[in-house]
Amino acid sequence: MTVHERRTRDCQARLRDAGAAVAVLAPGANLRYLTGVTETPSERLCCCLLPSDGDPVFVVPDLSGAQVREATWVSDVRTWRDAADPTATLEDAVDDCVADTGEVLLDGTMWARHVLAVQSVVGDRPFGLVETALGPLRARKDAAELDALRRAGAVTDEVMTGLFADADSLLGRSEAELAREVERRLVDAGGEGVSFEPIVAAGPNGAKPHHHGDRTVERGDPVVLDFGTRVDGYPSDTTRTVVLGGDPPAEFETVHDVVLSAQAAAVEAVDPGVEARTVDRAAREVIEAAGYGDAFVHRTGHGVGLEVHEAPYVSADSTTTLEPGMVFSVEPGVYLEGRFGVRIEDLVVVTDDGCERLNDAPRGWRV
Amino acid sequence: MTVHERRTRDCQARLRDAGAAVAVLAPGANLRYLTGVTETPSERLCCCLLPSDGDPVFVVPDLSGAQVREATWVSDVRTWRDAADPTATLEDAVDDCVADTGEVLLDGTMWARHVLAVQSVVGDRPFGLVETALGPLRARKDAAELDALRRAGAVTDEVMTGLFADADSLLGRSEAELAREVERRLVDAGGEGVSFEPIVAAGPNGAKPHHHGDRTVERGDPVVLDFGTRVDGYPSDTTRTVVLGGDPPAEFETVHDVVLSAQAAAVEAVDPGVEARTVDRAAREVIEAAGYGDAFVHRTGHGVGLEVHEAPYVSADSTTTLEPGMVFSVEPGVYLEGRFGVRIEDLVVVTDDGCERLNDAPRGWRV
Repeated sequence: MTVHERRTRDCQARLRDAGAAVAVLAPGANLRYLTGVTETPSERLCCCLLPSDGDPVFVVPDLSGAQVREATWVSDVRTWRDAADPTATLEDAVDDCVADTGEVLLDGTMWARHVLAVQSVVGDRPFGLVETALGPLRARKDAAELDALRRAGAVTDEVMTGLFADADSLLGRSEAELAREVERRLVDAGGEGVSFEPIVAAGPNGAKPHHHGDRTVERGDPVVLDFGTRVDGYPSDTTRTVVLGGDPPAEFETVHDVVLSAQAAAVEAVDPGVEARTVDRAAREVIEAAGYGDAFVHRTGHGVGLEVHEAPYVSADSTTTLEPGMVFSVEPGVYLEGRFGVRIEDLVVVTDDGCERLNDAPRGWRV
Repeated sequence: MTVHERRTRDCQARLRDAGAAVAVLAPGANLRYLTGVTETPSERLCCCLLPSDGDPVFVVPDLSGAQVREATWVSDVRTWRDAADPTATLEDAVDDCVADTGEVLLDGTMWARHVLAVQSVVGDRPFGLVETALGPLRARKDAAELDALRRAGAVTDEVMTGLFADADSLLGRSEAELAREVERRLVDAGGEGVSFEPIVAAGPNGAKPHHHGDRTVERGDPVVLDFGTRVDGYPSDTTRTVVLGGDPPAEFETVHDVVLSAQAAAVEAVDPGVEARTVDRAAREVIEAAGYGDAFVHRTGHGVGLEVHEAPYVSADSTTTLEPGMVFSVEPGVYLEGRFGVRIEDLVVVTDDGCERLNDAPRGWRV
């Protein structure tokens, strides 16, 4: 039995436990995790019906038939002709493998156009999300997944450290140009492109956690650098906040120290058996004690696997119990509107007695 | 009135014509087109309710509030606190701006997790797709959009031509390595990354239209190169099929000639006032006449704008009437399983008296 089929059988047991009739998988992480198929989302209907009992059935565009069959252990791959309506093919597949009652779990990232198509075929019945059943399985990474995540982390660290070494040449260029510079360097270092659009946020733009723009990076600007690549499909995601030359604005050094301490405290709090919210609390306490609690506007972290954001989430209300093999970001931040922001992020994997960081580029602000 | 607000008011008139109560926009092309907001999809609910009458209302994560407000003309931007449940914020927004009856149009690319959230709030009423109302508006590009599309095409042509010039150095490398080489060159040439994962399909892999893999490219392999970048957010998308050295397999030259003739015939058929299916027919007739009809397994093209695939689609059943300013791909292909594939693709814009190609890299197979 392949690793993909074994995961699928595990997932089916969870579907039965949840009383669900079927999981409808769309191109993306869940589909890849269970079937090995790496199609990307598009306007063409492509899905895999995974019933709680029995074998999965693919419904794919004709032009993807050969590559889906090559990629997967699933033998029932049905195709619909391009420019035709896939509804009849989908109806037949539902008739053949989906029980008449029970919840229909939809892939969380399935596009609305396909959700409406599925809903029109299965009719009026309860809908939920595949992640409910599959999230806990995907959260615990196996050895091959950890290997890919480690290598993606190493590529990203190499690029981050290289940027620090070339700090002088980065000054005077725009945020958008530096985002492209990061992409070029990630590819040169062996990464599979970017795992998300790189964030380069200079000066006051750093106060917007997900900023993209084209401000020129000046001496003395705190610069938030948040990026990652993929290796074997698995992403990295790391952040440093640095000053590429000159003196930072007032209060920056204090805030950087606070965030760095908060991150260290949160990493220190990671242990198997503790709840994810304990990690969030550890970071938040440090930041609150320093008087910046209101400026830490997001959760402490998110799981990372085939998706850059997945379970387990590390937030104030997350009661997920940490287990060895779980991988997530630890990324506290402080954002002072109109002035600057500071975020420091590493991925960690939970081990038997604590955690291992998957990133290790220098964390200081002076480069 | 900004260009975004003007488009929004146009869209609202179409919503009223369609009897729709509201369009629910998600991060992606529709949202960017109407509001200027360039957020990317994520697990955090971010949407804009566009009622058929009155002003739009954004519901966004707290950590994106500042950048959404900066990016858009829409004044009502409501935020929900990270790690909180956004349902109450969404409910209030729906209560404030959405009529109790009428269809709810969902953004076609909205993620299922958010579709279910919206459905739980608005209850049991008819759902449709935003594209029905907005597709025809987006299909006709204005001068600024055409300028961006032209520049994206020029960057991609430059990279394609450069690859031909360096053919010797590409032999012996894997498809996956060449995909990264393409990405690096697109960025070097001034593009904003890749507009989709580059397709490099060598030898028999070319028979799978959307192949990704790691076969080593050998002398005599026909290689399908299909890629694009973005400029100002607008993508390019072009394909050439070449042999980087050595002699191609039997029948390749014949098939390449057929596809090239089919593409020329289809481009020739583009005129304002004709139906899109006329263009599809023009390509298909050439390929059928040569005896390869069954091997042309996809439509002739797709519209290109903020999305790489959007209206108008150029397929056998598309009755869309072509209008000046519409941009789409013309990309016939012939796929011989286990042997090779040939596809040749350019983007064209419909003009007052025909069309203009947005790509012009050499179309021959010998480089």
